[in-house]
Amino acid sequence: MELQTAKGVRDIPSEEKIVKNKVVDTLKEVFEKYGFSPLETPILERYENLAAKFAAGEESDALKETFQLTDQGKRKLGLRFDLTVPLSRYIAMNPQLKMPFKRYEMGIVFRDGPIKIGRYREFTQMDIDTIGTNSMLADAEILATVQESFKQLKLDIIIKINNRKLLNGVLKQAGIKESEEAIIAIDKLDKIGKEGVVKELTERGYKNQQIETVFSLIKEGITLKQLNGKITDIEGKEGLVELEELFNYLTEMNVSQAVFDISLARGLAYYTGTAFEVFLKERAITSSLAGGGRYDKMIGGFAGGNREVPAVGISFGVATIMDALILKDKQIRKTVAQVYVIPIRTLTASLKIVQQLREKGIKADFDLTQRGMSKNLDYASALGIPYVLIIGEKELKEKKVLLRDMSSGEQNLLTINEVVSKLR
Amino acid sequence: MELQTAKGVRDIPSEEKIVKNKVVDTLKEVFEKYGFSPLETPILERYENLAAKFAAGEESDALKETFQLTDQGKRKLGLRFDLTVPLSRYIAMNPQLKMPFKRYEMGIVFRDGPIKIGRYREFTQMDIDTIGTNSMLADAEILATVQESFKQLKLDIIIKINNRKLLNGVLKQAGIKESEEAIIAIDKLDKIGKEGVVKELTERGYKNQQIETVFSLIKEGITLKQLNGKITDIEGKEGLVELEELFNYLTEMNVSQAVFDISLARGLAYYTGTAFEVFLKERAITSSLAGGGRYDKMIGGFAGGNREVPAVGISFGVATIMDALILKDKQIRKTVAQVYVIPIRTLTASLKIVQQLREKGIKADFDLTQRGMSKNLDYASALGIPYVLIIGEKELKEKKVLLRDMSSGEQNLLTINEVVSKLR
Repeated sequence: MELQTAKGVRDIPSEEKIVKNKVVDTLKEVFEKYGFSPLETPILERYENLAAKFAAGEESDALKETFQLTDQGKRKLGLRFDLTVPLSRYIAMNPQLKMPFKRYEMGIVFRDGPIKIGRYREFTQMDIDTIGTNSMLADAEILATVQESFKQLKLDIIIKINNRKLLNGVLKQAGIKESEEAIIAIDKLDKIGKEGVVKELTERGYKNQQIETVFSLIKEGITLKQLNGKITDIEGKEGLVELEELFNYLTEMNVSQAVFDISLARGLAYYTGTAFEVFLKERAITSSLAGGGRYDKMIGGFAGGNREVPAVGISFGVATIMDALILKDKQIRKTVAQVYVIPIRTLTASLKIVQQLREKGIKADFDLTQRGMSKNLDYASALGIPYVLIIGEKELKEKKVLLRDMSSGEQNLLTINEVVSKLR
Repeated sequence: MELQTAKGVRDIPSEEKIVKNKVVDTLKEVFEKYGFSPLETPILERYENLAAKFAAGEESDALKETFQLTDQGKRKLGLRFDLTVPLSRYIAMNPQLKMPFKRYEMGIVFRDGPIKIGRYREFTQMDIDTIGTNSMLADAEILATVQESFKQLKLDIIIKINNRKLLNGVLKQAGIKESEEAIIAIDKLDKIGKEGVVKELTERGYKNQQIETVFSLIKEGITLKQLNGKITDIEGKEGLVELEELFNYLTEMNVSQAVFDISLARGLAYYTGTAFEVFLKERAITSSLAGGGRYDKMIGGFAGGNREVPAVGISFGVATIMDALILKDKQIRKTVAQVYVIPIRTLTASLKIVQQLREKGIKADFDLTQRGMSKNLDYASALGIPYVLIIGEKELKEKKVLLRDMSSGEQNLLTINEVVSKLR
């Protein structure tokens, strides 16, 4: 038997998981400060919920890449491909919830897709969503949360913002009614350039005249002000008004990293209004770190009848953020331990001392193997543990222990209290 | 379409997820203090790894209840049923890891089994394991971590401890060689009583004489000292020596909640030595809160050849611990927000104030809907938010805001700094 993981998934070793935990804990703290509460939805979802036309839609890539399985009762299930569909299903099932409902969720999602570098078949998303209000205040608050999150992580970002209604308006002005495929083409502007997008639109049968009209409006650096006189379509105008309102709130909330970008067009079908995507400012990593927008139709779709439930949210790609941090901070730690305790014929006393350190909140590890000094020092050094505490009989009689700084090699005879202060 | 979750799984609403996060965060903090570092293994595992004879074993319940699926390349996969098998596979695949290797992992595991109250088809486990040493110091350290974890959670527990070698010895002394099925019967002592176990052993074909021998040793309250002269089998004696050593270390580490219980016999096939299980002292919940033991053969099985890698670990059942906390602490909060800010025609100023509160680390929520006062108060009250901050024009001119304590109804005109001190 050749021993390996399943294809397209991987183990995250301690040195990377420490960074991942930092991302997760930082985001969680910021989300809670912004009044988002935790929720957990299951990984297993009824397949029909995932495939609903207002969710993934039967023809979407997300659904094509959904892992399918059955339970013992032969029920058809899928592993969720995002956290937004289960959230929408949850909201629809719980009409008693007070609105607005603000929640965050961290969870693993799955895509049985092609394998690329940095792209796995199971990965962690962290989402925040505000349900039950169509006020642009909700969109602004989400973006303020995003800016604060990356500030805490010390990553320089920009937030690109657009509006699906504005984009639909632009397309309608060019005589393009069914805008889905045109939006998917425009979404690639960043990757394949204007020429590539023109080629794709031409292949899809659009006329030169139409394509020219689209690009007279979708121009790099075009501002909301410049668009103001040029948008005549009603839906497009509505998008423009929403964007103006949103940017006013963003100014009031000091969200200075947000910029309008008319070419931003997120791929998923369920978006209905504001759309946003977060990138590293220097683009050392080209993939987006987070992305989201308004999806005012999905929850109503699940709820059925005439219930309309507007919603806006964003999903943070934890692996990409982790990569950005690792790129920046080259320091790698293989363990959380701050100190490694080595007894020299002082097992009983040393056990008590390590327990004392832990009681004081110090992350302390201990030689469990009763091996020799040099092996112990190699171990601490290989794991990158910053300090070693050597507890010998003679020193112990004087109530002292030897603290060794593993990077400088400096050693000091200290009391336990002194060790505690030093390590804190 | 009738809207529902998949059978046997559930959504965890905010009020319960807040408790779950408390459990997870507390355990994580204690685990790190004890020098365990984080690791993440995938949910998707090759089916053949799960089914290996030294892992679940082909005949086990765990494997019968494993969700199976295939990827696009028709590879046979399973959803993991515990965190121990993927950990063992990881260690076997990474011979470069420094030993002892101490890790914790929090993860979701799956069992496609019958549905009972409090038992779900996907659930969270938190595990700690120490790999690469057969010293009883490792077992003792795991149990010290367990005691400290429940102390931090303020739950009164007892830790029952036994040893599989001792149990095998007892059975061998009674002439029972293949002990697996007898151990499964004895494991039920707590549930079906001595009479039930005797009946089951009789049905399995064991003689009265054999069963009597077993019960002359497996007696409630029997001590290690009392067993000392009675165990003649070599493996049994080895188990006894290990237990004595373990209890010495536990005394030195002040693990006072640990008790020897010869009837403890955990069901999983992979255990080889020490076994332990944690219960609420008052047994308000009868299920165990955590359980584990030594599994010295599994990693070597994955690694193949002559590599032997001893291991000991424990798995915390997060849902059961959550239930125990909810039972104890009846207070329920539907949101993490400490304060809800209501502007009265002061939107711009209020946005700045809510941002100020968040900068000071206060979990603050904000009226996104611009609705009336009484609806806003109802909302804050329904969610159990302890304070409301009302920001009116007149008060604002005097640099004051109105803080309302939602439980007493008391209101005070305060400066923002006063509000911050109060809420902190």
